[in-house]
Amino acid sequence: MENSSASRTLPVTDRTRHRRLRDQGSTDRAALDAILAAGFLCHLGVVVDGHPMVVPTVYGSDGRWLYVHGSVASRSLVAAPEATVCVTVTHMDGLVLARSVFEHGVNYRSAMVYGVPRLVTDPEEKLAGLRCLTEQATPGQWDYARRPNRKELAATALLALSLEEASVKIRTGGPDDGDGPDAELGLWAGVVPMTTVFGEPEPDPALGDGAAPPPPHIAALSGRR
Amino acid sequence: MENSSASRTLPVTDRTRHRRLRDQGSTDRAALDAILAAGFLCHLGVVVDGHPMVVPTVYGSDGRWLYVHGSVASRSLVAAPEATVCVTVTHMDGLVLARSVFEHGVNYRSAMVYGVPRLVTDPEEKLAGLRCLTEQATPGQWDYARRPNRKELAATALLALSLEEASVKIRTGGPDDGDGPDAELGLWAGVVPMTTVFGEPEPDPALGDGAAPPPPHIAALSGRR
Repeated sequence: MENSSASRTLPVTDRTRHRRLRDQGSTDRAALDAILAAGFLCHLGVVVDGHPMVVPTVYGSDGRWLYVHGSVASRSLVAAPEATVCVTVTHMDGLVLARSVFEHGVNYRSAMVYGVPRLVTDPEEKLAGLRCLTEQATPGQWDYARRPNRKELAATALLALSLEEASVKIRTGGPDDGDGPDAELGLWAGVVPMTTVFGEPEPDPALGDGAAPPPPHIAALSGRR
Repeated sequence: MENSSASRTLPVTDRTRHRRLRDQGSTDRAALDAILAAGFLCHLGVVVDGHPMVVPTVYGSDGRWLYVHGSVASRSLVAAPEATVCVTVTHMDGLVLARSVFEHGVNYRSAMVYGVPRLVTDPEEKLAGLRCLTEQATPGQWDYARRPNRKELAATALLALSLEEASVKIRTGGPDDGDGPDAELGLWAGVVPMTTVFGEPEPDPALGDGAAPPPPHIAALSGRR
């Protein structure tokens, strides 16, 4: 995935043009792929009865499609099959503490993907998409757990959104007021990094005492960022 | 804040009624306040030219208003002053790994707040709102850093959204397939907890060598969840 997209550029559309803080915007397709690969929670925006609705859900990507788990969206999709959605993935990397409140900010990486999603109906693509979702959150889990049967597949709503139209924003580095008059205030300034980590696996009580430890692919999550 | 809202119930509207996974929905106002107090990143959904746009931004709350930093939203607000927005705050607490892929899920707490926001113009309320935002991310920082001057205040777009209409969803606990036929598969199942942590403060290189250590309120962030 990284190889094929390393030199590609995202097209700039009216929706994805960076209007402010231009230095934070990227049209690098590889940056989009990296942001999507670094998480599995997205916020899916749909318009329902004229108002926006932002729903947290899980996603997976195979580099061409963004697969999104979504029944709220699929409900509105059935009502408005040609409607555009916006899927946003955000990673917070740190608090930027400046000398002045005005210069405070957040280091982050975010991607906003726009498009008209497809409701995935083909059982084979649905399985492939669910594999993406499952593996993105827990690599190795697709081969470990019992896969969906026909009935479960039918009960799962999966959307596929093209990655063609996306806006990427990244902020890194320290505060910006280290060379202005506020530097004279003598205040501490810098970044407090943030990261999301996995803790120790907690076995389902139904496993009972003396249950086997988690398999290596699950144990390996702990401490992973 | 907790005291005044502990026994209050959120009204159920057409937008906030929980249609599925009802056991995960809460109409407890204190649950809303707790979710909002536990973070400072939100996803703000607006409708721009008929399509949804989901923008990550920071917020703060005083228990009555949700103050949101937002210039994209304020741009669309000027264009459509009576338009509803949806602000969603999500905390991911763990991966729920079941025996079957179908039963996989995420432990999370999320709040979706709906309403027509006000663009805050009164300088005094703007200061109070920015204080909320600043203190929510870094308690103690408002009294430490230089506060916004008149020019900076004018350059800051702040929205105030009432907390009256909100939908709260919470999932906790282990996987649900411990008592069905899949329990016979002998697979490990459980929860892998997730949490967002602060790391060690990284001083701005502009502070130079031999800079003083961060003040206690910043040092205290490290390891905080």
